[in-house]
Amino acid sequence: MLKQTEKFETGQSIPWSEVIEKLPYNADGLIPAIAQQFDSKEVLMMAWMNQTSIEETLDTGRVCYYSRSRQQLWRKGESSGQVQLLKEMRLDCDGDTILLQVDQTGPACHTGRKSCFYNLIKDGKLTVDKSPLIDPEELYGNS
Amino acid sequence: MLKQTEKFETGQSIPWSEVIEKLPYNADGLIPAIAQQFDSKEVLMMAWMNQTSIEETLDTGRVCYYSRSRQQLWRKGESSGQVQLLKEMRLDCDGDTILLQVDQTGPACHTGRKSCFYNLIKDGKLTVDKSPLIDPEELYGNS
Repeated sequence: MLKQTEKFETGQSIPWSEVIEKLPYNADGLIPAIAQQFDSKEVLMMAWMNQTSIEETLDTGRVCYYSRSRQQLWRKGESSGQVQLLKEMRLDCDGDTILLQVDQTGPACHTGRKSCFYNLIKDGKLTVDKSPLIDPEELYGNS
Repeated sequence: MLKQTEKFETGQSIPWSEVIEKLPYNADGLIPAIAQQFDSKEVLMMAWMNQTSIEETLDTGRVCYYSRSRQQLWRKGESSGQVQLLKEMRLDCDGDTILLQVDQTGPACHTGRKSCFYNLIKDGKLTVDKSPLIDPEELYGNS
């Protein structure tokens, strides 16, 4: 879809309104989005966005995903308070993956860890090598 | 699938052989994998892996994806020479996304750019803000 920008010079642009509706959304209307903490560069999580959540994120500056399990917009932090402020949004060469630079309040992960990628695969084992910043019960209550 | 590791203490592990076959592969048998340059922390690309490509990557230390367009294993760099050496492999909290720390030789992107994420979305425009390191014709020939 973004074939036309492959040979763009640095600084060359096209109107975003010509792009957003034509992105290669999957059969469910979704695109994967990677969230990276803008200053430490730690990769925090991967989630999914639809066109509405992309537009809302750009409009509000607060990251909104689409929850596949709940089948609704998911304003990150709406139940935990751990919001993501948008610093920058990018698309990859074929337009089918989004990279978000964010400023994450507290943990990104529902387990209370900063990043969701705490499962290290090494030497024939999967080892948890990151600790929670906050007990998840404090984030979501005792339910 | 990785529910059991959510409450693990730091350092606690399970055998990888108990995990790899049970990962939440999608209907096509694939899991998305994010590649991050291990030292600069730049996010380079997102691609897909199946069980065989995960196993080969861990065995050889050279990143192998699964190409959805060609429907076959894709040993990164096999046509361009721009290989990815594996530094670290991780899974996220629900086991459905892989994070690879890699050492990328030259550009990761088929356009000759270091990263595939060269399309910046800002102020109502999509702007290319990264230049190729190498002319892609040098990487792939003139075809």
